[in-house]
Amino acid sequence: MMPSKGYFITFEGIDGSGKTTQARLLEKKLQTIGYQTHLTREPGGSPGSEWIRKLLLKQKALEWSDLTEILLFFAARKDHVEKTIQPALDTGKIVICDRFTDSTRIYQGSENPHHRKIIDSLQKHIIQLEPDLTYILSISAEEALQRTISREEDWRLNRLSKSKVNTLIQDFKNLSIEFPERCYLFSGSNSPVEIAKEILEFTMARFNA
Amino acid sequence: MMPSKGYFITFEGIDGSGKTTQARLLEKKLQTIGYQTHLTREPGGSPGSEWIRKLLLKQKALEWSDLTEILLFFAARKDHVEKTIQPALDTGKIVICDRFTDSTRIYQGSENPHHRKIIDSLQKHIIQLEPDLTYILSISAEEALQRTISREEDWRLNRLSKSKVNTLIQDFKNLSIEFPERCYLFSGSNSPVEIAKEILEFTMARFNA
Repeated sequence: MMPSKGYFITFEGIDGSGKTTQARLLEKKLQTIGYQTHLTREPGGSPGSEWIRKLLLKQKALEWSDLTEILLFFAARKDHVEKTIQPALDTGKIVICDRFTDSTRIYQGSENPHHRKIIDSLQKHIIQLEPDLTYILSISAEEALQRTISREEDWRLNRLSKSKVNTLIQDFKNLSIEFPERCYLFSGSNSPVEIAKEILEFTMARFNA
Repeated sequence: MMPSKGYFITFEGIDGSGKTTQARLLEKKLQTIGYQTHLTREPGGSPGSEWIRKLLLKQKALEWSDLTEILLFFAARKDHVEKTIQPALDTGKIVICDRFTDSTRIYQGSENPHHRKIIDSLQKHIIQLEPDLTYILSISAEEALQRTISREEDWRLNRLSKSKVNTLIQDFKNLSIEFPERCYLFSGSNSPVEIAKEILEFTMARFNA
């Protein structure tokens, strides 16, 4: 059954967990079945948000503090929701987004309760839109570091110790305990094709629930 | 008497009210007397904040919504406070800033109580720093429109009706009622030299109070 008012699915997990691949595979499969879809990513996904993404990636030169980064991520997110996500949902599409507020909760919020409170408040009062379904992909710290070693954009992991990467992975896992109504945990260690099959089945079951 | 822990003075008012000129004149005069000063402006005043300013000025192309604009202004402000204003205050300087949170309160918040509430919350929880003294310069709508007609950056007024400009001027005036402990209203219609003299006298009286 096609959700009539659109359906918002997000993929979350540490860099290298396979979420970008799985977001693409899910979109392809849903399109094959006949669903109207829109695949997007954060930060980015709208012209304004892509500009803010460029500023965020200047972290090395501009040394944004955690709080400034949080504000920039939410500015990018608000523009993305208003210009891209909500309009697509309004036409009944399934929107699949690579990262959303949960990533900000973990990367900018998990070490500092004051920052986490600010993130939750910005989500509630400014973004307002919540995902219908969130897939969290989980891999080991070794896999994450190995898979991202050659990636230009994954500057985050390269700066971190292995124990810090482990903490982040655990924080992503914990989202499924904090938001059990929408967050589901999948292993990112299996083969991409296998994971994609499981996720498609789960998605179809949710549509039909 | 030199304030020992720095002193934070902001200038506010509608575009064309003369605040930029008065901020410069006050800095010069304080320097002549022997004070250490730092003159800055918003949005901008730090490398990261100047980048965000560029994005804000792309309003025509990117069509930021009010809420996205608010987040970008506060990201710029946080960076500006952390990198420029607070360090200057910490060395005992008098920081003079052309626009601060009050401008966001008026331009992005005065028409929408929900937005105003968000602005006050971001100021309280993220910026935290409040000006010691705020000068609000007030002129008539006719003067504002005439003075800014040839200015590239004052895109704001050119889009607005005269009655809307009048409302904004009144909103700026009302700040002195809302924040009587720090906001003082001066007429921007007198000659710049005359206004500068009054403001210097007032500032010195506050330092010595």
